[in-house]
Amino acid sequence: MPIPKPELYPPFNVVRLSHVDLGVKDLLASKAFYVDLLGLQITDETADRIYLRAMEERGHHSVILSKSPSAQVNCLGFKVFSEQDLDKAARYFSTVGLEFKWGAEPHMGRILRVQDPHGIPLVFYFRMDREKTIHQQFELYRGARPLRIDHFNCFSPDVQASADFYNFLGFRTTEYTEDEITKSLWAIWMHRKGNIHDMAFTNGVGPRLHHIAFWVANPIHIIDLLDIMSTTGYLDNIERGPGRHGISNAFFLYIRDPDKHRIEIYSSDYQTVDPDHEPLKWDLKDPQRQTLWGAPAPRSWFEEGSVFKDLPTREPVLRAQPIVAP
Amino acid sequence: MPIPKPELYPPFNVVRLSHVDLGVKDLLASKAFYVDLLGLQITDETADRIYLRAMEERGHHSVILSKSPSAQVNCLGFKVFSEQDLDKAARYFSTVGLEFKWGAEPHMGRILRVQDPHGIPLVFYFRMDREKTIHQQFELYRGARPLRIDHFNCFSPDVQASADFYNFLGFRTTEYTEDEITKSLWAIWMHRKGNIHDMAFTNGVGPRLHHIAFWVANPIHIIDLLDIMSTTGYLDNIERGPGRHGISNAFFLYIRDPDKHRIEIYSSDYQTVDPDHEPLKWDLKDPQRQTLWGAPAPRSWFEEGSVFKDLPTREPVLRAQPIVAP
Amino acid sequence: MPIPKPELYPPFNVVRLSHVDLGVKDLLASKAFYVDLLGLQITDETADRIYLRAMEERGHHSVILSKSPSAQVNCLGFKVFSEQDLDKAARYFSTVGLEFKWGAEPHMGRILRVQDPHGIPLVFYFRMDREKTIHQQFELYRGARPLRIDHFNCFSPDVQASADFYNFLGFRTTEYTEDEITKSLWAIWMHRKGNIHDMAFTNGVGPRLHHIAFWVANPIHIIDLLDIMSTTGYLDNIERGPGRHGISNAFFLYIRDPDKHRIEIYSSDYQTVDPDHEPLKWDLKDPQRQTLWGAPAPRSWFEEGSVFKDLPTREPVLRAQPIVAP
Amino acid sequence: MPIPKPELYPPFNVVRLSHVDLGVKDLLASKAFYVDLLGLQITDETADRIYLRAMEERGHHSVILSKSPSAQVNCLGFKVFSEQDLDKAARYFSTVGLEFKWGAEPHMGRILRVQDPHGIPLVFYFRMDREKTIHQQFELYRGARPLRIDHFNCFSPDVQASADFYNFLGFRTTEYTEDEITKSLWAIWMHRKGNIHDMAFTNGVGPRLHHIAFWVANPIHIIDLLDIMSTTGYLDNIERGPGRHGISNAFFLYIRDPDKHRIEIYSSDYQTVDPDHEPLKWDLKDPQRQTLWGAPAPRSWFEEGSVFKDLPTREPVLRAQPIVAP
Repeated sequence: MPIPKPELYPPFNVVRLSHVDLGVKDLLASKAFYVDLLGLQITDETADRIYLRAMEERGHHSVILSKSPSAQVNCLGFKVFSEQDLDKAARYFSTVGLEFKWGAEPHMGRILRVQDPHGIPLVFYFRMDREKTIHQQFELYRGARPLRIDHFNCFSPDVQASADFYNFLGFRTTEYTEDEITKSLWAIWMHRKGNIHDMAFTNGVGPRLHHIAFWVANPIHIIDLLDIMSTTGYLDNIERGPGRHGISNAFFLYIRDPDKHRIEIYSSDYQTVDPDHEPLKWDLKDPQRQTLWGAPAPRSWFEEGSVFKDLPTREPVLRAQPIVAP
Repeated sequence: MPIPKPELYPPFNVVRLSHVDLGVKDLLASKAFYVDLLGLQITDETADRIYLRAMEERGHHSVILSKSPSAQVNCLGFKVFSEQDLDKAARYFSTVGLEFKWGAEPHMGRILRVQDPHGIPLVFYFRMDREKTIHQQFELYRGARPLRIDHFNCFSPDVQASADFYNFLGFRTTEYTEDEITKSLWAIWMHRKGNIHDMAFTNGVGPRLHHIAFWVANPIHIIDLLDIMSTTGYLDNIERGPGRHGISNAFFLYIRDPDKHRIEIYSSDYQTVDPDHEPLKWDLKDPQRQTLWGAPAPRSWFEEGSVFKDLPTREPVLRAQPIVAP
Repeated sequence: MPIPKPELYPPFNVVRLSHVDLGVKDLLASKAFYVDLLGLQITDETADRIYLRAMEERGHHSVILSKSPSAQVNCLGFKVFSEQDLDKAARYFSTVGLEFKWGAEPHMGRILRVQDPHGIPLVFYFRMDREKTIHQQFELYRGARPLRIDHFNCFSPDVQASADFYNFLGFRTTEYTEDEITKSLWAIWMHRKGNIHDMAFTNGVGPRLHHIAFWVANPIHIIDLLDIMSTTGYLDNIERGPGRHGISNAFFLYIRDPDKHRIEIYSSDYQTVDPDHEPLKWDLKDPQRQTLWGAPAPRSWFEEGSVFKDLPTREPVLRAQPIVAP
Repeated sequence: MPIPKPELYPPFNVVRLSHVDLGVKDLLASKAFYVDLLGLQITDETADRIYLRAMEERGHHSVILSKSPSAQVNCLGFKVFSEQDLDKAARYFSTVGLEFKWGAEPHMGRILRVQDPHGIPLVFYFRMDREKTIHQQFELYRGARPLRIDHFNCFSPDVQASADFYNFLGFRTTEYTEDEITKSLWAIWMHRKGNIHDMAFTNGVGPRLHHIAFWVANPIHIIDLLDIMSTTGYLDNIERGPGRHGISNAFFLYIRDPDKHRIEIYSSDYQTVDPDHEPLKWDLKDPQRQTLWGAPAPRSWFEEGSVFKDLPTREPVLRAQPIVAP
């Protein structure tokens, strides 16, 4: 039984995933992709950074595009419940022997920087500038009509270790994949905010970011995005989909940004707020796990991901093979 | 400023609204409405009760239809985070002088019965039978394709008093309507589970239940339900909509069951988990408050509601007049 | 039995409705409405005229906006099958004693101008400039995402006379409304191109244009348009809907342009190409005739319409009263 | 230039494709597929035949399932404009030296049987029993919610010859694929009823039926069908899609029935009634020809098809290779 017992009273209260800082080589190309094509809104722009939010977000940003000599992920951000929770977090990381640093960033209050046991750079904070609502300025909607950031998904070289760590932080498991031969944990979906996941891990060369996802209200918007991408020079940026995931039940599309960072457009998962919500188990060889409708994912989807800044990767401990498109 | 300061550390932890027990005069007629027309699934059925759940719910029931000599609402149910939270709730109600009773019900663990300050019969519990998932048994979907119960909305004779009480229980305000002349609170939307509301109150003869709502994934399902209702003898059960609410931004439809209990079919509100989420204020005379697209609600929508069992109603303290269809 | 026997071998072959020339008082305001809001594409623009087409149309224009001192309709255009059909039309109109004139217009070949028996100014033509396809330039779609002009609907002071005339021209009846008391024809829907209608007539002060309609692929686009209109200053331009028509089965929305010309956004009628397609009859007092879901149309919808250039109107011969919203 | 000049005044008037008679080995299995899964309605049922129609069709049947020792296609049916057109057809076939036979079938008037130059068994008729409308009996809709039969698509061993024959019958070309090396016609889409096609031909071992298509109103219904198929034992019957065709611009899904007959669920092509409608040309090696979004079709899609009764197939004259999924 590889799923850790949920930690219902964690050492500090993480509310939700919040934002990602993406290192991109060409700010203009990335702006065209995230703003003109995908439909995110600019909240601030400097010589080397662009801050973006989705249509219903009131926090200042869910994506930071940072000019960078190479494609990389600078950090994954999480919002906590209060300033006190930041202090509790610091005490907890001290106790478990994880180094942390206090820092500051534009548009945000006090931030706590720490690396998870595999080195993934995390940022915890409580205060971020709050913006005026735009979710009813319907003339601004375009592209995929993204409403909010939904989750991160990372390759982990040791999914069991990743699951254990985030479980201690109060992330609760909703679905998971087991390699039925070794009974090992292949992939796991864990949440704080009450839907399928804020954070997921998949076995693979890592740690690397597999993708970030944006939530959209209607599969029709995903079809619209595909139509636009395929007729405006973004055909090769379409990687997988559209389809229905067995896991999460979401209607999905995976696309790649100009630096090959992977973006999921994601619609319609389910509510998981109950503390006694039972995780669903999937077998690694179940073809409907990945795509309920049966189409396997392409090889790139299993092999490619974004490195974290200055963080070497290593081979995964598990060697099982998922079903890959020929 | 009529909105109470949010109580971020409430005396006990309510997870979400959970279920309603509706007194109905004709079980067969109600079964036809909720099961055959609306698409809820039966989880248990006795001589005088039918238990129902929506498609993604794992709790045993979100609606109980109880044979009753008259149309009424027997109770509104809420799930708490743990058995300990029930004990904390009992202590809290003792402290504030609200009488409570411990009870038991089929398919549920220990339950705590209490009436809110206006007399609304509430049930708090932690344990309910958990059912097998059916959200991917797509051949079972029908009618409105309801995914989960979303919220209760009640008429209150004193919205300010209702808001203050539920605020103490940790319900956080997302949107509210102010009568701009008296600066009084006309209506309020409050949540625990991280979307617009678990519970809302509107000024009116009360306490009465205004409606319960079910969440659906796509406005198309609401159009489908309208097409079916209008051609299978349920035309007169359509009360208002379809439309977009200004408040909540949801795409909505209001229908009436055979006992005139009002059901909202509700799609696409937004995420509100941030503890510093700022409430949105609407003016009572803003025509887009009710319907973004401008169509006023019919008089019945403001005047009719379901009484609670054995609970007399009284006139509201506020006399302001919303915009009513001629 | 008020429906004329279909004329399967008409004197000349009308292919479809084609375009409308609308007299508008403020070209800029109309351009904002038809182009920026509704989503039509400009194919030509002069000091006093703007030519527009919808997304899948290859003919040069389906709407001409003509600067005009007052709001009016200059003509309704129809495409015939060949130049020979224009000559056949001329012979036919001579035979029945209708005066006609040959003319010329930019972007079109030879045109034949004639007024129908009530004076409606008609234009018949075969050749119009053909444009490059843009239906797969998805980045151009906006607003209601209109695909093509679908039909004209006119008030007629004598629907029976109108029906008889267009029936002789080969327009075939698909649905009609009878005043069940006098057994008179109240309204009729007639087609050439194989769906519900190219032309419809409703009893009323006339002749006037009731509306022109554009076909859209998905009800979701109509919801999108409503959201945009209600938040960009066009709230008062929304007149009726959204809803499902009993007649035609279409999902509809009626809006008014800056000159009060009425536009229907129309989705999903059915195929009617069979020569033995039987018309459907509706009773005037059937509330589902207008709106399957029961909501009556507002009074303006029955009383207001666009006058044709220099054409006086007269009271209708029928006095029956449809169901009007209070 | 491989596209024949359109025959605007053909020897007889074909209105539209009408129906297919499919030989199936297991009537019960086919009934489960077409009725319970796909959503067609039964209009008649005998010991060895089931007659089906889609939701808006008034003709008695668009599909006949005929008990048969092997999977085959018994005939493709077309409706003509009048009984006189049948006589004109007979004269035309005499003139060009094609043998024909008069026949009779249940629920139909006089029928004319003929084989096209490659041997495809065709049926022409004018009269078929007309049924009561059910398109507004919304409680009957299920599965893919099919509205009408849309087209046939056949493998032809000589597409140029097929195109020439049907062109003489008045079928007009809307889109076509050319092998850019030999400038030969690889595939062609031809219509009578005013949309992309009633009949299409693709180069391949033939003659064989590639697929029949049903028109649905909304891509959402295709997603619904996929969800149902993949969870009710029909996962292996999903062959290709969902996706957007470059050709025709339709949103599509291809599935296989229990006898491997291929069915397309098809949404949203465009209007083509103009006699001067210009065909669109696609290059065989354009990857967006098949799927605008880039995913190639599986090999089975190019190689497998349904044989016609008692009709041998032969190798195609063209040897060019389309893009096939690895």
